[in-house]
Amino acid sequence: MATKQIPYKIYLEENEMPKAWYNLRADMHNKPAPLLNPETLQPMTAADLSGVFCDELIRQELDDTTPYFPIPQPILDFYRMYRPAPLVRAYCLEEKLQTPAKIYYKFEGNNTSGSHKLNSAIAQAYYAKQQGLRGVTTETGAGQWGTALSMACAYLGLDCKVFMVKCSYEQKPFRREVMRTYGASVTPSPSMETAVGRRILAEHPGTTGSLGCAISEAVEAATSMEGYRYVLGSVLTQVMLHQSVIGLETKTAMEKYGIKPDIIIGCAGGGSNLGGLIAPFMGEKLRGEADYRFVAVEPASCPSLTRGVYAYDYCDTGMVCPLAKMYTLGSGFIPSASHAGGLRYHGMSPVLSQLYDDGLMEAVSVKQTEVFAAAEQFARVEGILPAPESSHAIKVAMDEALRCKQTGEEKTILFGLTGTGYFDMMSYEKFHDGRMDDYIPTDGELAEAVAKLPKVE
Amino acid sequence: MATKQIPYKIYLEENEMPKAWYNLRADMHNKPAPLLNPETLQPMTAADLSGVFCDELIRQELDDTTPYFPIPQPILDFYRMYRPAPLVRAYCLEEKLQTPAKIYYKFEGNNTSGSHKLNSAIAQAYYAKQQGLRGVTTETGAGQWGTALSMACAYLGLDCKVFMVKCSYEQKPFRREVMRTYGASVTPSPSMETAVGRRILAEHPGTTGSLGCAISEAVEAATSMEGYRYVLGSVLTQVMLHQSVIGLETKTAMEKYGIKPDIIIGCAGGGSNLGGLIAPFMGEKLRGEADYRFVAVEPASCPSLTRGVYAYDYCDTGMVCPLAKMYTLGSGFIPSASHAGGLRYHGMSPVLSQLYDDGLMEAVSVKQTEVFAAAEQFARVEGILPAPESSHAIKVAMDEALRCKQTGEEKTILFGLTGTGYFDMMSYEKFHDGRMDDYIPTDGELAEAVAKLPKVE
Repeated sequence: MATKQIPYKIYLEENEMPKAWYNLRADMHNKPAPLLNPETLQPMTAADLSGVFCDELIRQELDDTTPYFPIPQPILDFYRMYRPAPLVRAYCLEEKLQTPAKIYYKFEGNNTSGSHKLNSAIAQAYYAKQQGLRGVTTETGAGQWGTALSMACAYLGLDCKVFMVKCSYEQKPFRREVMRTYGASVTPSPSMETAVGRRILAEHPGTTGSLGCAISEAVEAATSMEGYRYVLGSVLTQVMLHQSVIGLETKTAMEKYGIKPDIIIGCAGGGSNLGGLIAPFMGEKLRGEADYRFVAVEPASCPSLTRGVYAYDYCDTGMVCPLAKMYTLGSGFIPSASHAGGLRYHGMSPVLSQLYDDGLMEAVSVKQTEVFAAAEQFARVEGILPAPESSHAIKVAMDEALRCKQTGEEKTILFGLTGTGYFDMMSYEKFHDGRMDDYIPTDGELAEAVAKLPKVE
Repeated sequence: MATKQIPYKIYLEENEMPKAWYNLRADMHNKPAPLLNPETLQPMTAADLSGVFCDELIRQELDDTTPYFPIPQPILDFYRMYRPAPLVRAYCLEEKLQTPAKIYYKFEGNNTSGSHKLNSAIAQAYYAKQQGLRGVTTETGAGQWGTALSMACAYLGLDCKVFMVKCSYEQKPFRREVMRTYGASVTPSPSMETAVGRRILAEHPGTTGSLGCAISEAVEAATSMEGYRYVLGSVLTQVMLHQSVIGLETKTAMEKYGIKPDIIIGCAGGGSNLGGLIAPFMGEKLRGEADYRFVAVEPASCPSLTRGVYAYDYCDTGMVCPLAKMYTLGSGFIPSASHAGGLRYHGMSPVLSQLYDDGLMEAVSVKQTEVFAAAEQFARVEGILPAPESSHAIKVAMDEALRCKQTGEEKTILFGLTGTGYFDMMSYEKFHDGRMDDYIPTDGELAEAVAKLPKVE
């Protein structure tokens, strides 16, 4: 029998869209280590967390056993405004590479935030609204998460306060303007608005900021204002839970056409996209129902999985957040200023860290000039101009497809195309003008940051 | 019987997508007046046009009788990379406005060019490639057309040379960078590369350029290079033909769910989007099969339909292009420097001009601050951050919906959401900062430009 013809883009019908998020931890044999209270070094309780996070999100954060969480109807309604995201067959890329491999990508960029971040932003904003809060605070680096959160807050009528890493604030005025369009207030970080910001500015007067520092400011702002909570766009397990919608849609779409991926590839910064994409596939693997290769792709300039250590570390620079056991380069690690491609967080999702440590997932690091070269090649044949972050996955998917060309194997490759690069043209310009380097941290630099890890037995 | 539930977004299946473009002129009782040779003032023949345009496009340009042109398979394949475009039910906007009206929009912004322009760009590039040409030249203002053409050329392996209005080139470096990513060469216009550019620079040393001037340069470049032709993103009837794919998809999607629009609204600069959206509906009206209200929306600062004259005029500043009979403000008219919202062409598609003159279509002009206010309101409830051009249609669709609220009528309103505003954040910033004015040309200014129209009996 001939296989059903595969469309260029597979869109699920609205009634085929997931009605519940999948909690991968319920199927993990080795659960991720608990978050620790930064003062007592004891596991965080719901009570410990309640000043920082919304109650329902704390419940999701700490739940290791419930496999599915129903998605509330208002979130389903919001999802319908920009989802289902298409699963695209990369026919043109396959032809360009002359590969026998079949390449698919799940494209999450068809919304104004430009990425998958909206999937968790609306969930976190919704629970804040449900709890009767006035607003939320957060940090943003490249700006995708901040944009997503401001969109969700505008929709729900919630106040939104974003601390944006200062160098991004200055280099990406248009991102900031998008957030303003959605009514968010955007503050360059470090700022004089918080004690931790003032402390960091006093210690490092010329600093252009970091994600870890902006997190500290956002947490302080949330805990010092009545009716506010802090929300985070990656790393946390609640974020992976919401992002499972990516993998669930993908799996349903593939099954509809009888497609089974051999390799699943995603870029990894804090792990929100990769974790969401692989979740239901990894669940099958953990339950012994199917097998897949999973590949995390990270920048060579910020290689937490491939060159970091698996240890308890602070999630932020100001050390006000809980400690998480994760692959980390040390919370003091800051990627080189020449690093253009996003994915600049020092740590990695505790869930993904555990899976990687258990040998269930591979990781590879790639240099940024080869990432941008892959991005440009992809754009020219597939049309979409990808975000630098997403292009890490493109690069490795292309490598795998070219390997198939050599071996003649007809593998099915799936990767996550997390977003578009419309607000990253300054980095593309650097690439076109030959002004982009491939700085890789030395072993000495990495050892220095790791030496400062907190001592937790 | 309950009506079939309408999804938030209606996507056609690939096999439901149009296989042929619809040529509205075949059904027009009064045909648009012919283009005139600028030297002889006689109707342009195919031979006259062959140095400027590709042969097949000339055939399409001059055909007043063939109702359907089959879409070649390679163009259908390209369309499948980013089409079908969704027809969206604006549930959230309806709720926000508390209107009994049903609002739909056809969203053409889900591709990297950010607009509907890609529909004609791929067609024009394809025919150039078929004819064995080396490349094409064009002009671009805001940059959507140039981006679209560079994407199409990259896909087909065709050289692409874009003359970009100088003020846009300087104010929108990222648009330029997107075109570079797709391998196009981009020259600020007026430039020293062409005789007409040098002449204009000599006469107006500090000029920041205009669309009419960039057109002249692109035409000169095409005719002076071996193996090149000129392509244009709007105004021409061939462009309206290709853009009919918008209306055809929309009509099929509506009929699938038993929806019939009462009012169809589109923004109008040169007319490519509006002409494409209304084509099959207007065809029905011309054939007496159905009736609809059609509304063209233009900026108050460049009001060719509402305040222009219906006369033969030059399409470009350098007067090297054919003359077209159209609603025009005079080819010497340049909108105020404070005009931020696109749609700045002095004339209007001859097809739409004839329909308007025949009373088959209405036109209305709107001020830019109310356009941006509507854009922001739309973004906050519907998620998508719209292009300023598209927001002209949003504004009038909202006005019509609010009128329904007053009268209690449950009208069905359809409008074209031509694109996204991600590269227009500088204009949004002006709006947010209260630095945007609503300059409207005086009667005296308009009379001055019209007085210079060519004398054609």
